[in-house]
Amino acid sequence: MSTEHTVRSFDEELKTLVKTVLRMGGLAEAQLANAVQALVRRDSDLAGRVVSGDGRIDAIEQEINDFAIRMLALRQPMADDLRGIVGALKISSDLERIGDYASNVGKRTLVLNQLAPVKPVTTIPTMARLVQDMVKDTLDAYVERDLDKAVMAWSRDDEVDELYTSLFRELVTYMMEDPRTITACTHLMFIAKNIERIGDHATNIAETVHYLVSGNPLRAARPKGSGQGEFGDTLDDIQELNR
Amino acid sequence: MSTEHTVRSFDEELKTLVKTVLRMGGLAEAQLANAVQALVRRDSDLAGRVVSGDGRIDAIEQEINDFAIRMLALRQPMADDLRGIVGALKISSDLERIGDYASNVGKRTLVLNQLAPVKPVTTIPTMARLVQDMVKDTLDAYVERDLDKAVMAWSRDDEVDELYTSLFRELVTYMMEDPRTITACTHLMFIAKNIERIGDHATNIAETVHYLVSGNPLRAARPKGSGQGEFGDTLDDIQELNR
Repeated sequence: MSTEHTVRSFDEELKTLVKTVLRMGGLAEAQLANAVQALVRRDSDLAGRVVSGDGRIDAIEQEINDFAIRMLALRQPMADDLRGIVGALKISSDLERIGDYASNVGKRTLVLNQLAPVKPVTTIPTMARLVQDMVKDTLDAYVERDLDKAVMAWSRDDEVDELYTSLFRELVTYMMEDPRTITACTHLMFIAKNIERIGDHATNIAETVHYLVSGNPLRAARPKGSGQGEFGDTLDDIQELNR
Repeated sequence: MSTEHTVRSFDEELKTLVKTVLRMGGLAEAQLANAVQALVRRDSDLAGRVVSGDGRIDAIEQEINDFAIRMLALRQPMADDLRGIVGALKISSDLERIGDYASNVGKRTLVLNQLAPVKPVTTIPTMARLVQDMVKDTLDAYVERDLDKAVMAWSRDDEVDELYTSLFRELVTYMMEDPRTITACTHLMFIAKNIERIGDHATNIAETVHYLVSGNPLRAARPKGSGQGEFGDTLDDIQELNR
């Protein structure tokens, strides 16, 4: 009886943990969406709200850490249950970074709004939409414990890297054509990099989900090292030589 | 008797864990030092070795994760011991990121070495030396459980951010003066950003050491949000309004 009670209540705690991770994920998704919208619309109010909203995500991460550590200490879980807790810790750490990157996009948008607009960079919203889908799909895969969905989201990181590479080249061209756009373009470059990094963290989450559900890592055929697409083919050759 | 044996052998396991974290830290320090040396000397061989050397750091992180999770599962530690294990996990995750950033500096150096040299950017090695000291000091603080040393290293992140800001401005000026340097300068900008981010991770490690030794967080007066020094004063004002 007492055992059954402990078991049920451990499951409830695990559910609470998953729900809190999802709440954090929802906030991170919203922060990213708002940051990109603020950028596209040159909306400093919204950008400011993104920047000041990051603290909420950090607070939830702390909550998850404390809760998970308490569970580890009091429940002494094994195997699957232990993976569930460690997985929540890993995912919340990735979500915290996603929140940081979104907030950084907000900060840079505030700066960009004080400069003359650069010609419309449509690749950034396209990239952002792709990354938003990845974040959403990996979180769905997490709650549904859906291996296929995790792998599918994971494999899209290549597309993000390709968009980032073409955007990087586009921005270098703009800067060369009109040096007055250099400051704005460097901020756009860092914004694109931030979004590309969010894609990497979504990839991490997909890997964690894979590990949680299957017990095996999804590392072997990782789409891209650390998303350094702007180096082009030459670097791949150089790296090949160094292997 | 049996209890004493368990206790002693748990302590031994903790020591092994700390030693492995330190080995990982030593590698990360070496990777950073080599990456900066490769950049300064335009040494592509060395840069290539940095890039290909990152896998070793990742492998040690995996080792630490596995070992720590096994300890959590089998030993069911409480309080101090639990903090020791969670702390090792956190620090190894920061060291893994430091390794990634060093490897990225290596990759960008390979690209830079195929372009004409930009005028000597002396600020980068200065920044790197400061960040290397921070990493070294936080690892010393970790092994010596030295609170003062951790706080001292932690407080130096402001200097790094200042150097980064001045470097950012310097590079924008170079690009405006001579648009042919734009590609090289953007890589130097990302290199500087990588080094600045390594400083942030050293700051994280100092915070973890503080938590490990004192049981209390060192978050309240964090030197800088996420090191966005290049935004200048205007942004601080805007952020102030949004608080």
